[in-house]
Amino acid sequence: MASTTFDVYDTTLRDGAQQEGMNLSVADKLAIAPLLDELGVGYIEGGWPGAIPKDTEFFKRADKELDLRTAVLAAFGATRKPGVKASEDVQVRALLDSEAPVVTLVAKSDIRHVERALRTTGEENLAMITDTVAFLVQEGRRVVLDAEHFFDGYRYDRDYALRAAEAAFTAGAEVVTLCDTNGGMLPDWVHQVVTAVGEATGGRLGMHAHNDSGCAVANTLAAVSAGAVHVQGTINGYGERTGNADLLTVVANLELKEGRELLAGTGLRDMTRIAHAISEITNIAPFARQPYVGSSAFAHKAGLHASAIKVDPDLYQHTDPLAVGNDMRMLISDMAGRASIELKGRELGFDLAGQGEVLSRVTHRVKDAEAQGYTYDAADASFELLLREELDGARLAYFTTESWRVIVETVPGDPTDANAEATVKMHVGGDRVLATGEGNGPVNALDHALRKALLPTYPEVERFELIDFKVRIMDTQHGTDAVTRVLVETMDTGAETTWSTVGVGPNLVEASWEALVDSIVYGLLHAGVEHRG
Amino acid sequence: MASTTFDVYDTTLRDGAQQEGMNLSVADKLAIAPLLDELGVGYIEGGWPGAIPKDTEFFKRADKELDLRTAVLAAFGATRKPGVKASEDVQVRALLDSEAPVVTLVAKSDIRHVERALRTTGEENLAMITDTVAFLVQEGRRVVLDAEHFFDGYRYDRDYALRAAEAAFTAGAEVVTLCDTNGGMLPDWVHQVVTAVGEATGGRLGMHAHNDSGCAVANTLAAVSAGAVHVQGTINGYGERTGNADLLTVVANLELKEGRELLAGTGLRDMTRIAHAISEITNIAPFARQPYVGSSAFAHKAGLHASAIKVDPDLYQHTDPLAVGNDMRMLISDMAGRASIELKGRELGFDLAGQGEVLSRVTHRVKDAEAQGYTYDAADASFELLLREELDGARLAYFTTESWRVIVETVPGDPTDANAEATVKMHVGGDRVLATGEGNGPVNALDHALRKALLPTYPEVERFELIDFKVRIMDTQHGTDAVTRVLVETMDTGAETTWSTVGVGPNLVEASWEALVDSIVYGLLHAGVEHRG
Repeated sequence: MASTTFDVYDTTLRDGAQQEGMNLSVADKLAIAPLLDELGVGYIEGGWPGAIPKDTEFFKRADKELDLRTAVLAAFGATRKPGVKASEDVQVRALLDSEAPVVTLVAKSDIRHVERALRTTGEENLAMITDTVAFLVQEGRRVVLDAEHFFDGYRYDRDYALRAAEAAFTAGAEVVTLCDTNGGMLPDWVHQVVTAVGEATGGRLGMHAHNDSGCAVANTLAAVSAGAVHVQGTINGYGERTGNADLLTVVANLELKEGRELLAGTGLRDMTRIAHAISEITNIAPFARQPYVGSSAFAHKAGLHASAIKVDPDLYQHTDPLAVGNDMRMLISDMAGRASIELKGRELGFDLAGQGEVLSRVTHRVKDAEAQGYTYDAADASFELLLREELDGARLAYFTTESWRVIVETVPGDPTDANAEATVKMHVGGDRVLATGEGNGPVNALDHALRKALLPTYPEVERFELIDFKVRIMDTQHGTDAVTRVLVETMDTGAETTWSTVGVGPNLVEASWEALVDSIVYGLLHAGVEHRG
Repeated sequence: MASTTFDVYDTTLRDGAQQEGMNLSVADKLAIAPLLDELGVGYIEGGWPGAIPKDTEFFKRADKELDLRTAVLAAFGATRKPGVKASEDVQVRALLDSEAPVVTLVAKSDIRHVERALRTTGEENLAMITDTVAFLVQEGRRVVLDAEHFFDGYRYDRDYALRAAEAAFTAGAEVVTLCDTNGGMLPDWVHQVVTAVGEATGGRLGMHAHNDSGCAVANTLAAVSAGAVHVQGTINGYGERTGNADLLTVVANLELKEGRELLAGTGLRDMTRIAHAISEITNIAPFARQPYVGSSAFAHKAGLHASAIKVDPDLYQHTDPLAVGNDMRMLISDMAGRASIELKGRELGFDLAGQGEVLSRVTHRVKDAEAQGYTYDAADASFELLLREELDGARLAYFTTESWRVIVETVPGDPTDANAEATVKMHVGGDRVLATGEGNGPVNALDHALRKALLPTYPEVERFELIDFKVRIMDTQHGTDAVTRVLVETMDTGAETTWSTVGVGPNLVEASWEALVDSIVYGLLHAGVEHRG
């Protein structure tokens, strides 16, 4: 039964989405959920149906569109309002209507918050917990109670905080999660409180930590060592203020350092890829120094011990990077690099196993390109074009570029007009073509000009739509030489497929051009279009 | 004496500089050191003289150029080589020659590293520790011993690790720092080991943590609670792989949550400003979610409890943001904003105390601008121009811009030529002026054209040199609308002064133009140049 298991509970889609600058659409959430499932978490908290219209829609569509392998959806919401029956509380009904098998109720456990924010009595708050949990359990839902501000509340009025937890267990809650809502706790205190609450209630306890004192991971581990069997957190530590506990780090620590088995399937070994895939959806730049999955996490600066590290990597790494799907970054020509290229090729339908020389060349080019700032993790289409070029010995030649030019023009005080104009000179379908496009920025203008030049020969490009455009300044370089990376996502509106391409260079406009050209070539190739000379 | 104090030991300039993508010049280090001193740390580890030429030069120049208030410089280096006298070891002599009053010696304490990486015997390694420490102490230096890989070593061969620590203390080391070099420890184990080593040696212990398991801060706190009296770390947690313990978070936790007084002067209250100033020098984008000093650390998304937070901020924040010089971000029109603007004005020589209305307008404009992505922390010159505009009721009018245009042109395969050309149309000195400039990128070209247009009227601009140019894509926005922030640093080579200006917008080129224009106006103003109509 449930009581013998350990819960890995992800709240990226709900509490993680509180992060400043993050704004997840329903489509984003529907794209992230399968990645969480692939990671192997037990629970995916999808949002607050009834309170946030987008979240109501998420649960409606999730029911039809998601096919989760191991994870269970949880709907987040609040206990009933003061003075209202749980069964008649609109917000509680919306939780039922979400059809999520698990409902996570946030409840007050700090008497000051009850009196000052909720403006009701301690007794009524306890009744709200009891009634709401009991009602949902009776309706066949599994209930988790998130006891908000528990640690601060416990410090201020220990008895009241305990009574709140006990009310939930008595009414049938499966887990009571102790929340460090303000994130200021330190591990020693967390350990003490979780131990005491476990002894007092005998129930299954969870931990929900924020990172305001830089201890979210350690606080979660302290709770587990004090007996908690349910950990909440977010991918990449997303969340309000300093973020939530990074669920990836928590789980990797517990699996690799404490010998627990928490994630379903091969989740741990896929962790790095999944973390980066999610950061592409959130468009929050990955943090290079992130434990386990960061791009720098296993990067060793060549120094005194370079050769020693090669001989005895275990002496210089706290864990094997492959255990979390990451790579030691010093060994750039090692077999792991070739192996992962081979694997990626297979994914795209190319068998490189017998082709050692091609594999070497591709590995070499990818390593070179990545050192320049390219990333193929998020640009499979550009990788496929590179791979085909090495296999075929030549670049796919749907068209060639003679030159292009963009003009950005500004008249101060007149910001409303299109301020960029691009002209391209191409050789397409045996002809030399000149085309000009306008746009609200140089890349927009170039995109328009390129399509105009290609349309007569390749009418298919009309179906290609630029749906996302991301620019990142790689902060590894200084001043005017700063390298810019551009990722372009394109959709074939006929086939409803999407693909991503990448361009890199000191000049944003040039980098964008590179990604745009790759995008069109890949689109034509996969639309089955032949070269038209 | 020293034995009763607590050491806050900063290693940003040495171990922090190991971070991927960080490359500190001697000038950068000389600019960071006074900021660390202002923060109030006890020790600044400046580098490894003798091993790294740049670091040798740093100590040479530091001796003449730095006037540290409270911090003491420490030189980092290794114990003598096997089979050589300490007094004859070139690297050890370089440590003496650095004239740093403190020398921090890294030494092996894991027998496996002694045998496999150092390729010597356990006994010789102990002799290396004894000899080197004794020699430096005899030469009048205070010595800290950094026991590398201590925790892994202790787990593997506890006796040997202890003997290494004891050898250092016996030879006169003031502190032995236990290093979690691979960064994989968890707090419980750190607490156990530090307790045991303290009991065995009775000496002053330090902690040096890395963040590979996401527990660097918690591990440092665990060591302190087990008796360590010396904490090492870096500003903003810079460092190799996942970084070192963030010294700011460690110190803020110990001061605010454990009631210790560690930093000299008002360091704690200046922490946020200093953290950001250092990140401008390293050009590593600040991490918004960084505890205490991050721009999001006290940012509350307006939600259910907005009014409750305003009434009872203590219920929703783990600590008062002003205690670390940060701000609650929800209250954008609060008095703190006005107060800090008034303070900044005073810094620049403007008394705004009596001018409530100007202060309100400036505060309002700054808040608006910051919401758009501007930052005046790193662009005092742009702030001063904004302030003068509100005081004088009009923009300074050395010149006006009619329009400008940049052309970026590329011929594939021909990357060597200048590929950008800019034309500006200005009104200067009563004339309408057209000027054209070339460059290797659009901003470079615009800069050249602007100077060419102004030179005949304002020959002073010849003295202005663009010395740094930083671009940051603000990742709070998506796609083609992504906001770009440009910071330009300019030097007046006649007066040897420098200033920074900022521009923001969806178009990188337009944002750059804004920063360039501010830069010239500020330069002319401070060169005492009158408007020439």
